[in-house]
Amino acid sequence: MLMMQEITADIVQATIRPREADTYKGDYGHVLTVGGNQNYGGAIIMSTMAAVYGGAGLVTAATDPSNFTSLHAQLPEAMVVDDTDVAELTKLIPTMNVIVVGPGLGTDQQAQTILETVFDLVLPKQILIIDGSAIDLVAAQKMTLPDTHIIFTPHVIEWQRLTGIAPDDQTPEKNQAAQQKLHANVVLKKHRTEVYMQDQIWQNTVGGPALATGGSGDTLTGVIAAFVAQFENKQKALLSAVYTHSKISDQLAENAYVTLPTMISHALPSFMAQMAKKTPEDRIGF
Amino acid sequence: MLMMQEITADIVQATIRPREADTYKGDYGHVLTVGGNQNYGGAIIMSTMAAVYGGAGLVTAATDPSNFTSLHAQLPEAMVVDDTDVAELTKLIPTMNVIVVGPGLGTDQQAQTILETVFDLVLPKQILIIDGSAIDLVAAQKMTLPDTHIIFTPHVIEWQRLTGIAPDDQTPEKNQAAQQKLHANVVLKKHRTEVYMQDQIWQNTVGGPALATGGSGDTLTGVIAAFVAQFENKQKALLSAVYTHSKISDQLAENAYVTLPTMISHALPSFMAQMAKKTPEDRIGF
Amino acid sequence: MLMMQEITADIVQATIRPREADTYKGDYGHVLTVGGNQNYGGAIIMSTMAAVYGGAGLVTAATDPSNFTSLHAQLPEAMVVDDTDVAELTKLIPTMNVIVVGPGLGTDQQAQTILETVFDLVLPKQILIIDGSAIDLVAAQKMTLPDTHIIFTPHVIEWQRLTGIAPDDQTPEKNQAAQQKLHANVVLKKHRTEVYMQDQIWQNTVGGPALATGGSGDTLTGVIAAFVAQFENKQKALLSAVYTHSKISDQLAENAYVTLPTMISHALPSFMAQMAKKTPEDRIGF
Amino acid sequence: MLMMQEITADIVQATIRPREADTYKGDYGHVLTVGGNQNYGGAIIMSTMAAVYGGAGLVTAATDPSNFTSLHAQLPEAMVVDDTDVAELTKLIPTMNVIVVGPGLGTDQQAQTILETVFDLVLPKQILIIDGSAIDLVAAQKMTLPDTHIIFTPHVIEWQRLTGIAPDDQTPEKNQAAQQKLHANVVLKKHRTEVYMQDQIWQNTVGGPALATGGSGDTLTGVIAAFVAQFENKQKALLSAVYTHSKISDQLAENAYVTLPTMISHALPSFMAQMAKKTPEDRIGF
Repeated sequence: MLMMQEITADIVQATIRPREADTYKGDYGHVLTVGGNQNYGGAIIMSTMAAVYGGAGLVTAATDPSNFTSLHAQLPEAMVVDDTDVAELTKLIPTMNVIVVGPGLGTDQQAQTILETVFDLVLPKQILIIDGSAIDLVAAQKMTLPDTHIIFTPHVIEWQRLTGIAPDDQTPEKNQAAQQKLHANVVLKKHRTEVYMQDQIWQNTVGGPALATGGSGDTLTGVIAAFVAQFENKQKALLSAVYTHSKISDQLAENAYVTLPTMISHALPSFMAQMAKKTPEDRIGF
Repeated sequence: MLMMQEITADIVQATIRPREADTYKGDYGHVLTVGGNQNYGGAIIMSTMAAVYGGAGLVTAATDPSNFTSLHAQLPEAMVVDDTDVAELTKLIPTMNVIVVGPGLGTDQQAQTILETVFDLVLPKQILIIDGSAIDLVAAQKMTLPDTHIIFTPHVIEWQRLTGIAPDDQTPEKNQAAQQKLHANVVLKKHRTEVYMQDQIWQNTVGGPALATGGSGDTLTGVIAAFVAQFENKQKALLSAVYTHSKISDQLAENAYVTLPTMISHALPSFMAQMAKKTPEDRIGF
Repeated sequence: MLMMQEITADIVQATIRPREADTYKGDYGHVLTVGGNQNYGGAIIMSTMAAVYGGAGLVTAATDPSNFTSLHAQLPEAMVVDDTDVAELTKLIPTMNVIVVGPGLGTDQQAQTILETVFDLVLPKQILIIDGSAIDLVAAQKMTLPDTHIIFTPHVIEWQRLTGIAPDDQTPEKNQAAQQKLHANVVLKKHRTEVYMQDQIWQNTVGGPALATGGSGDTLTGVIAAFVAQFENKQKALLSAVYTHSKISDQLAENAYVTLPTMISHALPSFMAQMAKKTPEDRIGF
Repeated sequence: MLMMQEITADIVQATIRPREADTYKGDYGHVLTVGGNQNYGGAIIMSTMAAVYGGAGLVTAATDPSNFTSLHAQLPEAMVVDDTDVAELTKLIPTMNVIVVGPGLGTDQQAQTILETVFDLVLPKQILIIDGSAIDLVAAQKMTLPDTHIIFTPHVIEWQRLTGIAPDDQTPEKNQAAQQKLHANVVLKKHRTEVYMQDQIWQNTVGGPALATGGSGDTLTGVIAAFVAQFENKQKALLSAVYTHSKISDQLAENAYVTLPTMISHALPSFMAQMAKKTPEDRIGF
């Protein structure tokens, strides 16, 4: 059986370090979130909010224009762009560090066109997080993946659609084989979320059923985007994002039967400040 | 005289138990709220917010598109759909566990058409909560009720419209007879709200005049929907929702002359966490 | 010189009493706020918010439809209606207890038409609060006042426009003479706001320069509306509203250099709960 | 080498003094913020929010109408106007004390037209804060600056565009020479922000990398606008705004890894209240 390593607090504490004094928003990356059709606008808001509160230097949401107002009403910190405006995306995407595609995107023809545009424009040096309906589209349309750093964030059913592995057959061995065939990192969302990357398999040690509410996955994409945008070690950044999202929920769950996406995003800055204050000695005792 | 049982905290504590660790949003039900015309959009927002904060796994609001932005501006956790889009509702309604119809729906021709669509599409296995203007429409148009699990949530005047029983004549006997003729559960909202179901009559023991403000009833529908969606015992879930809505108001009223709907919804996660922590011993001493 | 009485806490404590247990939103009045054009939509939001948080049973905002979404995004508790829809206002206004007209209404032709509609439809038994641009319109167009209970809420310049009395000449004697000619109650907003009603003159004893920020006056109209809608003694309700608005600002100003309208409205429920807990003995020692 | 003076707390404490009791919103200035196109609406919301929470008496945002709703949804305290409506701006601008132009304005043809309109209409007695894309437009189009009191707020790249001085060459001497040629005050944003005015050079002593997030600069423009609008000594007001913006971030950063613009704006009233309570003795010990 394959060895799974545990994602624990010390990885997060080693990743979220105090920022250097003489740094600027440009040092913390520009994240583009793509998604949110006329029915699922909330999903792209939640992903974008997590990217902003998670510390990305700049965040732009490419979404259906019907979502511009609701996004800005609670998140003036983000910029917006029409996700069907190919000319604009063509200018914008090369300037990004990290792109999230999928939250609330839907699976209709327009969604597919948008996804194809992103796949066409993404650059090899960028990180592309593929979530939700974008995973379904990749699976259903057998789309060719672009040549870039990809992170898939499926739940077990989406993973089945993508790989053909039924939930009960999703063993570490089979998952790893599928992940390596995809040439991508995979965050397989479940009770104890698993992260497959290169030749490593990691398992989350925190998180609970207070996260069992719509939007938790959208929020996770934003946290991952912010972390890989701003932290040097991309693997640890990814693992830290998975842990942080769940650990905040656990902390809030002391006083909340469900931990809603907006609650988790709003708690990101203080959780990250806590982590940044830890010294190596603290970490041992954590 | 009929025996009325008291709705007390122990029912709530036995209902709101810690969630099983290995559970997902799908385990906590999908709620559809239907209502909110161009003038009463706030009502559907308040109902939907209560369903989200009350712990339903997924929540979709079917409403006038003019309400999409205001809803998402404060509640990205919910999805939206045009409540006049019959094709969309035809796809959506069969996937639901619980449907609320009525908050802010109005009583014009379009409202009636929407209500008829819901009645046509609802399935026998689902739970349908009929509130506010939907009750008025059922009464005024003598609409045939669909074959499903129905919960009416009238105040005393709406109950009069539905049954012909004048407020002063609304005795437990007459109310129960009317309820049984309707083959429905009835939450009769008043100072001490009464719940009629099967051969039982229950009376709430909490709640006060801080709830005497527009939207309290809309919020109650969302709490009921979330509770019957996620808890196994549907009768106890209904009673617990009635109690929880009032008890939160009583707690907030210590420091609030009126307890507005948004205040109550925002307090749901912490109240439910409190309840879930109670042990059987605590319950006795409550 | 005329005798001015002081508005002190004991009036407020005698007015804001614990609500009777067996009461309903209908017992606390329905307030209509009228105003908010395409540029000044914030004003009607602030007035409406104060009416909701101040405890009115139901609140409807008649405003430019471009303000519906921003209002509902922060205040789902209120209903909305197009303030140019005469048919709708004709149905709605007779059902109201208190009407506020003026916040953000503007002074153009459309504003005047709306104001005339309100004046035409208001009933003798209702209370009409005339504020801001509505005062300017009454003065500039020499409009005939309707036969109802009127409360004007001018600042000193608006009062000059309405009466011709220059600020430096605004003595209690002249103000009272003007007020009696108007057959209206007058809240003359200034450092120590004065209230003229019948043969009484009252002067506020609280409030400070933290209120010197746009929207304070709009908020005051909502507090007055909520208080005269829900409390029996209309004179004491008016005085209590003036005091409450200022006193909340004073309390918040301990920790806020400016006390913004939304801060004051959000503090209304807790301030009112404080007041309702006071016993007669407390009042003496206040 | 030129002497740089330090911006320290005592300047802020001498500037933010308790307000005189008998003062009105008119005494604290009317600020106009101009900017926010269809993609960057958040920027003008953040600038406007800072002006409101920073204590300006009245604040109006001239922006693309697509931003009206999102602005009012979180900031009913501000008024709005279409920034392409020249007739309206022609009436409005002469009534202002302070104008901010640039946040989210963009650099397209429409942006340039708006900027030209502002330059045409601004009066010599007013204060004009030129930020962000407005700086880029001035540089790229070699626009003639209007005859008024100008404050530029460039970051180092914008300063390079405006003056031709490469970041590594931006010495106090060269910066001062460029600033004097511009006949303007310059807030050069960097790790330790420098303020050039007349023959003085000041350097900020607070602020950190928690500010390295999109919108920090927009927020700063609003704080500056509010401060120069309400405080008598314009130079100290400017220095105090720079310090206050950074110091609030430092205080929040104790518990926040990033300090988002909305967090900083919401903290302005309490920070300013703290400062206003300081006595001269406190200041020495600060």
